[in-house]
Amino acid sequence: MKDRRSFLKQSLAAIGTTVIVSNLAKAESFAIKESKIELHKNDIILFQGDSITDHGRSRDRLGPNDIDALGKGYVAHAARTLLHEHATKNLQIYNRGISGHKVPQLIDRWHSDCLDIKPNVLSILIGVNDYWHKRDGKYQGSAAEYKSQYQKMLDLTLQHLPNVKLIIGEPFGVKGVKYVDESWYPEFAGYQQVAREIATEYKAVFIPYQSIFDKAEKQAEGKYWAPDGVHTSLAGISLMAESVLNCFK
Amino acid sequence: MKDRRSFLKQSLAAIGTTVIVSNLAKAESFAIKESKIELHKNDIILFQGDSITDHGRSRDRLGPNDIDALGKGYVAHAARTLLHEHATKNLQIYNRGISGHKVPQLIDRWHSDCLDIKPNVLSILIGVNDYWHKRDGKYQGSAAEYKSQYQKMLDLTLQHLPNVKLIIGEPFGVKGVKYVDESWYPEFAGYQQVAREIATEYKAVFIPYQSIFDKAEKQAEGKYWAPDGVHTSLAGISLMAESVLNCFK
Repeated sequence: MKDRRSFLKQSLAAIGTTVIVSNLAKAESFAIKESKIELHKNDIILFQGDSITDHGRSRDRLGPNDIDALGKGYVAHAARTLLHEHATKNLQIYNRGISGHKVPQLIDRWHSDCLDIKPNVLSILIGVNDYWHKRDGKYQGSAAEYKSQYQKMLDLTLQHLPNVKLIIGEPFGVKGVKYVDESWYPEFAGYQQVAREIATEYKAVFIPYQSIFDKAEKQAEGKYWAPDGVHTSLAGISLMAESVLNCFK
Repeated sequence: MKDRRSFLKQSLAAIGTTVIVSNLAKAESFAIKESKIELHKNDIILFQGDSITDHGRSRDRLGPNDIDALGKGYVAHAARTLLHEHATKNLQIYNRGISGHKVPQLIDRWHSDCLDIKPNVLSILIGVNDYWHKRDGKYQGSAAEYKSQYQKMLDLTLQHLPNVKLIIGEPFGVKGVKYVDESWYPEFAGYQQVAREIATEYKAVFIPYQSIFDKAEKQAEGKYWAPDGVHTSLAGISLMAESVLNCFK
């Protein structure tokens, strides 16, 4: 909370005391760790991330609640259920995940692909490429940079959207399946730990995907949930969507 | 049940007494009206119907549990959830809905698109075109023919798959939305009544979609669930999938 609060305090002079105090109070009131999110009428929900979030969406379709714009993955599955179960609320749901992206790419497109959309609820799942691309020699980042970049992105978010409710997903790899072997650890676990710390720091609802998939593997082998260890199957999509839906009251 | 039982009895001579008595006993034991279906290991589930079932599936992809073969509608949504919630069962799920089809077209392709697949669970949603195409002068059927053709199709089904568990969906129209106005009634209600009678006669689990959509309209206007009165929105997809999932234990 340090960063969120210090940012808000630092912004007092710039934006106006009354508004900020009001927003700070609101931020504190909803910002109970792991508390579920209550949806309200006309809420805008934005899903951000990489290929797992993207999942084949039509990127030229930019409107909310568009079957092709939502992709074929967990976002679309969760969106359909939210629009059904909260039918009175006129929810507007967007997917802006892009395959291959890491935190730096999210930052580059954050104004148009997040701030301009003005979400009331922002769900972010990012980090597997921050590790994977470094591992493959295509990127020079580290877990520490993943953390500082993630903080920068969320500070920018709160500057513009001080009341936004955050959901942060843990980057995951289904162990022993295709791309994900033991050599991912312990380094990848460092990125997972960062995501958890970021969620605590910014009072986000945290989705512990790694343990969710680890538990699922007790029912069916890893490739049943994610055929390449990273991207979800039909069953994996439902598993992730259920996890997202559990974030809401 | 008359037809189902009489068919089974008539078949005694043709197929062999022991098998048929066994199958008749099984048919009776699971065939309790409105009872939920229990899924077993390696069960094959087939969804049949028209455009509402089809919903943009890739018709050249014929395998089970294929994200593109399942379409973008209620079948895919229900399939993902079934594969997730019954992960230990190695379910094989197919969609063979085809846009524009009526019962006669299902019969024409029933061997390849149903019997050869050998489903343990067969879900059928058919009938809106049987009414709609007649209304538009493109077809000369009637509710009585819809019934006799439906019976013929199910008799053929039980001849080959005496233990299949049936789900029959009520054809529906979301009243007052685009294509569906008051002039659909009372004639369309006759087709809905047939579907209900067929479900009773063949001991199928019946999904009363019309009342499900009527009830949903109390939460959000009709076009929220089906923008043209017939084909579902994102919310309508989830509403239908939930109804399908409710058929299973």
